[in-house]
Amino acid sequence: MSRKNYGDLKPPERLLLGAGPSNIDPRVLRALTLPIVEHLDPYFTEVMNETVELLRYAFRTNNRLALPISGSGSAGMESAVCNIIEKDDEAIVCVNGFFGERISEMVQRCGGKSIEVRSEWGKTIESELVEDSLANSNAKAVFIVHAETSTGILQPLKKISTIAHEYDALLIVDTVTSLGGCELSIDDWGIDLCFSASQKCLSCPPGLAPITANEKAINTIRSRKTKVQSWYLDLSTIEKYWSENNRAYHHTAPILLVYALREGLRILYEERLENRWARHKENIQMLVEGLEDIGLEIYTDKAHICPSIAAVKVPEGVKDEEVRRRLREEYNITISGGLGALKEKIWRIGLMGINSNRKNVVLVLEALKSALKKEGYSKSN
Amino acid sequence: MSRKNYGDLKPPERLLLGAGPSNIDPRVLRALTLPIVEHLDPYFTEVMNETVELLRYAFRTNNRLALPISGSGSAGMESAVCNIIEKDDEAIVCVNGFFGERISEMVQRCGGKSIEVRSEWGKTIESELVEDSLANSNAKAVFIVHAETSTGILQPLKKISTIAHEYDALLIVDTVTSLGGCELSIDDWGIDLCFSASQKCLSCPPGLAPITANEKAINTIRSRKTKVQSWYLDLSTIEKYWSENNRAYHHTAPILLVYALREGLRILYEERLENRWARHKENIQMLVEGLEDIGLEIYTDKAHICPSIAAVKVPEGVKDEEVRRRLREEYNITISGGLGALKEKIWRIGLMGINSNRKNVVLVLEALKSALKKEGYSKSN
Repeated sequence: MSRKNYGDLKPPERLLLGAGPSNIDPRVLRALTLPIVEHLDPYFTEVMNETVELLRYAFRTNNRLALPISGSGSAGMESAVCNIIEKDDEAIVCVNGFFGERISEMVQRCGGKSIEVRSEWGKTIESELVEDSLANSNAKAVFIVHAETSTGILQPLKKISTIAHEYDALLIVDTVTSLGGCELSIDDWGIDLCFSASQKCLSCPPGLAPITANEKAINTIRSRKTKVQSWYLDLSTIEKYWSENNRAYHHTAPILLVYALREGLRILYEERLENRWARHKENIQMLVEGLEDIGLEIYTDKAHICPSIAAVKVPEGVKDEEVRRRLREEYNITISGGLGALKEKIWRIGLMGINSNRKNVVLVLEALKSALKKEGYSKSN
Repeated sequence: MSRKNYGDLKPPERLLLGAGPSNIDPRVLRALTLPIVEHLDPYFTEVMNETVELLRYAFRTNNRLALPISGSGSAGMESAVCNIIEKDDEAIVCVNGFFGERISEMVQRCGGKSIEVRSEWGKTIESELVEDSLANSNAKAVFIVHAETSTGILQPLKKISTIAHEYDALLIVDTVTSLGGCELSIDDWGIDLCFSASQKCLSCPPGLAPITANEKAINTIRSRKTKVQSWYLDLSTIEKYWSENNRAYHHTAPILLVYALREGLRILYEERLENRWARHKENIQMLVEGLEDIGLEIYTDKAHICPSIAAVKVPEGVKDEEVRRRLREEYNITISGGLGALKEKIWRIGLMGINSNRKNVVLVLEALKSALKKEGYSKSN
């Protein structure tokens, strides 16, 4: 009997200007193919120590605990939720997009009570609403998304941080799409626990979720009445594997992805955070102006556009899928459609990490113009 | 203020003959650096479909559900446990090593009652004991480790499978160290749910945990009274992302690791399972004979030595750490020490995937001889 033939992988060379993953820095790719060593090899533990230091730099924190969870950004999210939330705990979950919904779902799966503070998708969360909810609950934590990947809104955090702490609740922040691209300062802003992902503004492959927690968050974990329900995502034991002293085996880290993350973070360290933030801000501004020049309407509240991703409305009468197909097939460029209720309603264009540059802005605008024209759209529509 | 300088990564070229990870096939490394595309790109979904087919081949199964969990082998383990076990469910957990203990811990963290069937480490689990436990409980499942990485014992499964099914319990098997190296036949052996890892006999980087479940296991999941406590490891929704029809976004898969896994599985498919199993068996036999020639004592019950890993006792008066340090520093070879109660008591030598070859057997034996001699050991000891 003849067997199926599986050919060589030959992926197309796409420019990834969607909601992530972004393209990978060539230096990171090279790091990825260096010789693998064991997960407790003295060479690797040194790499781990440096990765922790570089993560502290990226997060702007002096937290002892800063490490990558071995999974996607959602694994980081679940780790943040399940380490803090026990059965019957109350938590405020700010929901103004797809990923806020996901946090709320996770809180419930941990047996917690998710008290949702909602705003319209594409708008920021009002701090007054958070305060109301805190005043009327015994919430242990406030969960909020810094850069909502589903809408491109950037959430101001300082005021909500102050309020959360007045009510003795932890502030827990999703920075999946902001870390390394948007201004973020864990310690200055009073963020107690924070998770992110490797494949967005850090220009690394997907598969790791950086996380950091301060002593207050760690004490909350230490004073739990029950064990963390997830063994795999239990920060107390993962931390032991990542700590310089008394290191103990937990699971086999994705060693090559850690090489890659260290390199991605080193690139960020060399460029410096402030320069990276400025670059992202400048390029998204140029993109937004270009999109408006085409006649497209920005979906997100313009006062709070995220420097790493912009969302525009799909114009009346234009087919979302067809435009994205043209971009992909005619230009090898991918942008993202909308999630959930925003399906076919918006496009999301990401300029993340290495992809945030003027060349890509020009390219995606020209490609979009051409695809829109072929789909019958003109500015006067 | 001067800033710390982070240099280029320059990992040593180690030969990894420990308990895993093993060295990575050069073809897999090349696949790892191919251009990344998005997690829902039509090119990637095709790669996913082929990966599913190749996983079915590797597992010898016609199960619809066969996919890699986005995490280490322990994430695969937790996914198997938390999808099946609900609060107050009883489960038989066979414990004859470190990883059986881990399963038992996970069952408890899911609110389940773990009924442990124990045997001495390094010995197989007696099927009679499993039957006794099944007769005296309402166990929903029997968890057992096929190849205990901590001791190198290979567990016969067919009889326990028959017994489990007589009592209407699912058979759930850890094949982390056996998949792709030791004879394994999911459908023929009646295994209902099975998880593994990418970095052992598949010679891929760590970071993925192949898993497969038959309809009986899936029906058990479908008839749960409560949601799976882990959102990230929920097979019902992960399966939707991996299924050819009605594919829906769940999380961003570690795309490059999936490229790598497909290539690792393709290499296995080309060599064919039967040839791979024979190669592993032959080389471990040669290793075991060589170890006995040096005068070392095999730790594991010799009738059930795992073809991918062998455990020997550290001889009286020899320092475990010193010997391993010499192997590492003088030969760039790593082997593993013992876990838990076996710390400093045994060495574990793995011959997995690409690393299972005659050259490595000769090398590790000669290096070990030399290190032992320098540490004052002689055969007559």
